[in-house]
Amino acid sequence: MSVLKSTTHLRVRYSETDQMGTFYNSRSLEWFECGRTDWLRQAGVPYAQLESRGLYLPLVEAHVYYQGRARYDDELVAYTLAGPAGRAKLRFDITIHHAGSGLAVTSGTTIHALTDPAGKPIRPPEWFTKTLADKVSRFDESP
Amino acid sequence: MSVLKSTTHLRVRYSETDQMGTFYNSRSLEWFECGRTDWLRQAGVPYAQLESRGLYLPLVEAHVYYQGRARYDDELVAYTLAGPAGRAKLRFDITIHHAGSGLAVTSGTTIHALTDPAGKPIRPPEWFTKTLADKVSRFDESP
Amino acid sequence: MSVLKSTTHLRVRYSETDQMGTFYNSRSLEWFECGRTDWLRQAGVPYAQLESRGLYLPLVEAHVYYQGRARYDDELVAYTLAGPAGRAKLRFDITIHHAGSGLAVTSGTTIHALTDPAGKPIRPPEWFTKTLADKVSRFDESP
Amino acid sequence: MSVLKSTTHLRVRYSETDQMGTFYNSRSLEWFECGRTDWLRQAGVPYAQLESRGLYLPLVEAHVYYQGRARYDDELVAYTLAGPAGRAKLRFDITIHHAGSGLAVTSGTTIHALTDPAGKPIRPPEWFTKTLADKVSRFDESP
Repeated sequence: MSVLKSTTHLRVRYSETDQMGTFYNSRSLEWFECGRTDWLRQAGVPYAQLESRGLYLPLVEAHVYYQGRARYDDELVAYTLAGPAGRAKLRFDITIHHAGSGLAVTSGTTIHALTDPAGKPIRPPEWFTKTLADKVSRFDESP
Repeated sequence: MSVLKSTTHLRVRYSETDQMGTFYNSRSLEWFECGRTDWLRQAGVPYAQLESRGLYLPLVEAHVYYQGRARYDDELVAYTLAGPAGRAKLRFDITIHHAGSGLAVTSGTTIHALTDPAGKPIRPPEWFTKTLADKVSRFDESP
Repeated sequence: MSVLKSTTHLRVRYSETDQMGTFYNSRSLEWFECGRTDWLRQAGVPYAQLESRGLYLPLVEAHVYYQGRARYDDELVAYTLAGPAGRAKLRFDITIHHAGSGLAVTSGTTIHALTDPAGKPIRPPEWFTKTLADKVSRFDESP
Repeated sequence: MSVLKSTTHLRVRYSETDQMGTFYNSRSLEWFECGRTDWLRQAGVPYAQLESRGLYLPLVEAHVYYQGRARYDDELVAYTLAGPAGRAKLRFDITIHHAGSGLAVTSGTTIHALTDPAGKPIRPPEWFTKTLADKVSRFDESP
């Protein structure tokens, strides 16, 4: 009955670093995806199942804030929340910290359309809305 | 004496697609980097030279809008503009379109700190500010 | 009537570097893909068209040799050759050099099955074999 | 006193898929890196520590075999072994399977030089060789 905040453990891969010695900027979006995947699984609607039922959640917007460095092999923790975005969009809010110190690394928001396999926007199916109802705040309502 | 708008030609790589059949969302940030690289080179301050002089431009924010699909092997064009962001930050505005139709694919803004190799913020060096002065609008002024 | 050797121009992206200051090892395989894409287009069978006709070329093997460093913004040239690999497989041989000095960066071979969209091996269609016949050596013959 | 075989748990990320619906081929090398990282940590010489001591292990060769599909969100297990490769090189052998069925996904070998930060080959330091002596077979001997 309470809002779901999922936790994801990550370790910075060497492939995710760049010559600046910290993670390359686009990795934030890949880590945000790991956070969404875990949130949806814990919410009872694994994203792989959504796609097999014909429901896709492509990004329409992403906003990323870079707050601190993270180096190869650093342990990170991502916390993910979800909520409505307008009439028929979904929003994920993600913060990523160093596992030990809690120091902020990156945070951001991604906004997702709900579409069919061809990319055409659809209204959220009732089974989807109902399952998420108590895990998000004000899901499927106008902002 | 006019603002510099650089043009970058891209082709969607297979490695940049995902199972949705279009480009994976984080690729936008990698393409934005290609746009910045070309803008800085054409402005006379190639980024590789900036780093060898001790000036780094790490991202502090990124805002990405997804406007249309792009498939493997599609030809894209990125247009890049740069400008000041507050007292000591740099802003790049990038739009990416299909080369043939001109249809929008993705656009966004990245905000960059100016730092030394250790990541400590520094004021923009005079040679940097002077070189860019006529290519950006109001560079190095408060917003 | 002569074997096709295609040329691909690449520039090392910042996203392709790692904290060692050169390109991350898996990028070789992404650059090899760029080489294959250009070879197939010049051979008259663009890969995007192959897939839309139901012919896929998934990798079954890759062999990569790392010969020299390449840094951010370095200009590289990839040369690609293709040939048969056994009864029903395709082989690409790729070498990547620095554009200016010609110094070797990475080279390798990828072996590809010919499959339907579900991944089931198929014999090369006649239109495919005929188109490639004079661009590869001994295509579709046993080794 | 017995050879070390490390185990790494992976989940296929959406960013690692491509439009063929399985993982993109270069991801194998990124997953192999995760296997090496875990092997070296369990062997008592975390790779981050190696670099901070001035010892780098860049790839000189990679050989990858693609044996089966793996889809988004599939759970995989990587098993990693290490051993000598010639007088002064290191070899990792990695196999990746589906966690549930044990079906093979990809396997391969990477060969690594031992270098200083500038990329110059060096002989393996004694502390490195001694630490690994009972975890690899015949380390630091000619093949």
